[in-house]
Amino acid sequence: MNFKPLGERVLVERLEESSTTASGIIIPDNAKEKPSKAKVIALGKEIKKLQEGDVIVFGKYAGSEITLEGKEYLILEFSDILGILA
Amino acid sequence: MNFKPLGERVLVERLEESSTTASGIIIPDNAKEKPSKAKVIALGKEIKKLQEGDVIVFGKYAGSEITLEGKEYLILEFSDILGILA
Amino acid sequence: MNFKPLGERVLVERLEESSTTASGIIIPDNAKEKPSKAKVIALGKEIKKLQEGDVIVFGKYAGSEITLEGKEYLILEFSDILGILA
Amino acid sequence: MNFKPLGERVLVERLEESSTTASGIIIPDNAKEKPSKAKVIALGKEIKKLQEGDVIVFGKYAGSEITLEGKEYLILEFSDILGILA
Amino acid sequence: MNFKPLGERVLVERLEESSTTASGIIIPDNAKEKPSKAKVIALGKEIKKLQEGDVIVFGKYAGSEITLEGKEYLILEFSDILGILA
Amino acid sequence: MNFKPLGERVLVERLEESSTTASGIIIPDNAKEKPSKAKVIALGKEIKKLQEGDVIVFGKYAGSEITLEGKEYLILEFSDILGILA
Amino acid sequence: MNFKPLGERVLVERLEESSTTASGIIIPDNAKEKPSKAKVIALGKEIKKLQEGDVIVFGKYAGSEITLEGKEYLILEFSDILGILA
Repeated sequence: MNFKPLGERVLVERLEESSTTASGIIIPDNAKEKPSKAKVIALGKEIKKLQEGDVIVFGKYAGSEITLEGKEYLILEFSDILGILA
Repeated sequence: MNFKPLGERVLVERLEESSTTASGIIIPDNAKEKPSKAKVIALGKEIKKLQEGDVIVFGKYAGSEITLEGKEYLILEFSDILGILA
Repeated sequence: MNFKPLGERVLVERLEESSTTASGIIIPDNAKEKPSKAKVIALGKEIKKLQEGDVIVFGKYAGSEITLEGKEYLILEFSDILGILA
Repeated sequence: MNFKPLGERVLVERLEESSTTASGIIIPDNAKEKPSKAKVIALGKEIKKLQEGDVIVFGKYAGSEITLEGKEYLILEFSDILGILA
Repeated sequence: MNFKPLGERVLVERLEESSTTASGIIIPDNAKEKPSKAKVIALGKEIKKLQEGDVIVFGKYAGSEITLEGKEYLILEFSDILGILA
Repeated sequence: MNFKPLGERVLVERLEESSTTASGIIIPDNAKEKPSKAKVIALGKEIKKLQEGDVIVFGKYAGSEITLEGKEYLILEFSDILGILA
Repeated sequence: MNFKPLGERVLVERLEESSTTASGIIIPDNAKEKPSKAKVIALGKEIKKLQEGDVIVFGKYAGSEITLEGKEYLILEFSDILGILA
C-alpha cells in the first residue's frame, strides 16, 4: 500500500455484513445501527496494539473516507477502534 | 470470546430486570430510568479493577451495541462503569 | 452492602427534610432548591476524606439513582460532594 | 459550625449592603449587579490563602445555597473568590 | 487600598478617553469598540510582570465591577491584560 | 519559497484530481466529499515526520488559504494531515 | 513604541494589499477572504521565534484593535500567527 498514516491513525478497508476474521471464522452480521468491522491495511508507527490484517470494530460514524488507486478506504483514529476480532 | 477490547474498554452482556449476581443473590429490579446491570465478558488489558464474570452497574445511555456470533453485547468505557455488585 | 463503587464514586442514601447527623443533632430543613443531604453507604477505595456513615451535602441534581435489593440509593462523584455535616 | 467543606470549597455568610470588615471599617455599598461580599465561616483544609472571619468578594452568581441549623449560608469554590477586604 | 486580589487577579481603575501614562505622556483616545485602558491599584502576590501604578490595556468586556469605599473599580484576570503602556 | 510556517504548520499546494506522487505513480481520483491531496512546500522546524515535496492527504475543510507571489497555497496544522502518499 | 505586550502577545501594524517584506520584495495581494499580513512592532519577552520588523501572516479575524498615539494597531496572540514572510 502506498499510503503511510501519520500519528495515531489507521488505514482500514471496510468489511461487508458477513465477514471472515483473521482466524477464518465467519461472523454473520445482521446488525443495524451498530459498530462496523474493517481490516487494517496500514497504521501509524506509534501504534503497538494493532497490526496489518487485524479485523477491528469501530464506531459507525468515525473516520474519513479516502480513494487510493480507485479503491475505497477509511482513515480512523486509533482511539475510535473499540476492539479486535481474533 | 473472540473479541479483545482495546484501551480502557469492556465488553459486557446486558442483564435482564431480575438478575443473579456472581454470588447468587437475586436482585429484583423494578427500576425505570436507572443505571443498568451487565456481566463482564472481556476487558482491555490495562483494566485492573474488574474481571470477567463481574456484574457491574453502568449509566443507562453509555456504550456501543455490537453483535458477535449472532448475540448482542455492549462495549463500555471503564469510566462509564459506576460499581460492582458482589 | 453488596455494591462496591468504582473510582471516585460514593453510594449514598438520601436523607429526608428533618435529618439526624452522625453526632445526633437534628437539622430542620425547610430549604427549597438547595443542596441535599445523604448518608454515605459505600465508597471507592481511593477516597480518603470520607467514611461510611458520614452525612454529606451534595448538589441537588448530581448523581445516578440505583435500586439495590428493592431500596433506592444514589451514586455520586466525590467531586459533587460539597461537605460533611459533623 | 458543624459543617466541613470538602476540597477547595468555602462556607460563607452573605453580608448586607452596608457591611463591616474584619478591621472594623464600614463599607457603604450602593452597588447593583456587582460582586457580593461575605464572611468566611468554614473552609476546606487545602485552602491556605483564606481564614475564618475574612470578608471576601465573590462573583454574584457563584455558589450553592445551604441551610444549616435554620440559617442561610453559601458554599463557594475558592476560585470564585475574587479577593479579601482587609 | 483595603482590597487584596486573590490568585492571578488585578484590581484596576478605569481611565477615561484622554489619559496620562506612568511616564506622563498624554494618549489621545478616540477609539470606539477597542480595548480599554486602566491603572493598576492592587494585584495578587503571584503576579510578577505588573506593579501598582502601571497603565494597562485590557479586552473591553473583561472583568467584574466592584464598588470599594464608594468608588468604582474593576477586577481583571491577569490573562485578560494585553499589555503595559510605558 | 519566501514563507516560513510557524509552530506545527505546513504550507502546501493543493493537487488536482489526477495527481503524481513523489515516486511518480499517477493516482486517479474520482472521489467526491473526500480528503484532499497536496504537496508540501514549506514546514515548521519542529515537524520531523514530513519533508518538502511529500504528497499528503488532509481533511477537506482544514487549513487557511494564502496567496504568495500571485499563487494559491494552503496553511495546514500538522495534526490535520492524515498521511503521506509514497 | 510605548507599549509592551504581555505574555505570548504581539503588537502589529496591518499592511495594505501591496506590501513590501523585510527583504524588500513586493508581494502583490489580490486575495479576498484570506489571512492578512502585518509588521511586528513589539512583542512579549517569552516569544523567541519572531522579532521586530518581521512581516507575518495571521488569521483574518484574529486580534484586538488598539489605538496608540492616534495610530491603529492590532494585538495578536503568537499562536494566531501562521508564518513569517522572509
